[in-house]
Amino acid sequence: MFTPRPIGFVSSPYKDTGEVPKGLGAKHAADGVLKILPEFELGLTDIEGFSHLIVLWEFDRSPQLELGGGKLPGDELMGTPPSDNRPHGVFATRSPRRPNPIGLTVVELRRREGIELQVRGVDMLDGTPILDIKPYLSSIPSENLRRGWLAEAEARQK
Amino acid sequence: MFTPRPIGFVSSPYKDTGEVPKGLGAKHAADGVLKILPEFELGLTDIEGFSHLIVLWEFDRSPQLELGGGKLPGDELMGTPPSDNRPHGVFATRSPRRPNPIGLTVVELRRREGIELQVRGVDMLDGTPILDIKPYLSSIPSENLRRGWLAEAEARQK
Repeated sequence: MFTPRPIGFVSSPYKDTGEVPKGLGAKHAADGVLKILPEFELGLTDIEGFSHLIVLWEFDRSPQLELGGGKLPGDELMGTPPSDNRPHGVFATRSPRRPNPIGLTVVELRRREGIELQVRGVDMLDGTPILDIKPYLSSIPSENLRRGWLAEAEARQK
Repeated sequence: MFTPRPIGFVSSPYKDTGEVPKGLGAKHAADGVLKILPEFELGLTDIEGFSHLIVLWEFDRSPQLELGGGKLPGDELMGTPPSDNRPHGVFATRSPRRPNPIGLTVVELRRREGIELQVRGVDMLDGTPILDIKPYLSSIPSENLRRGWLAEAEARQK
């Protein structure tokens, strides 16, 4: 498979897992910055037009889940999330202990300043490596959504 | 960073990139199957309760983007997607040529049969390696959304 590499790092108010709001009704409204490495700056072209972004990142402070490891077979694949008192399969939760430790967060893009994206809604720890950024294209209530160049392209086609 | 590994493979009607609907107004309504490897089956526990899933997968038929490669510096970071005739930064598009070739698709879960998830809305090629599955927790119009064990857990807390 491919070799993951960081395209940048998250600047977040959370220094420790315990500080991140978790569980039922947890709100992720913290402001943070996605600091992109200079060599990837051109890849941010036109990102300002989107109101929301999908950020993929590495759970770098959570060890990659290894099957086996002294537990009953498969036992690592069940976990009890902060939002429940019952265990569920890892693929039915957002648990950090996953076969591929990739986290996903939807953030609101507030402003771009060169290689820095000022965003709201971070739930990552400070220093988290960013793997990818994609525009969020659907399902945000339409009155809150901007779709940047795609909306423009659609308008031009009409 | 971590070492990616497949947790399963997509069974899709699309054998070739040219067959996947692309561009403005493209609909992804194709039925497919997420075939999870048997050693990860326990991780699917309780997934049936969710109406929609986020699937992360590898663009395994698109070479990982390498900076340099004979082009002008950074030029690989711009691309013209099928939905527009103007180039945009890779992080403002869903282009397969990304620094980390990770794709993301939201699918509707129709049925689980053991290690097979019957889903609607695939846009991956047949045989695509799956990296992760996460429950889709928000932003689908609420009348279409089921939230499985999380809704139950919330109801119990009331």
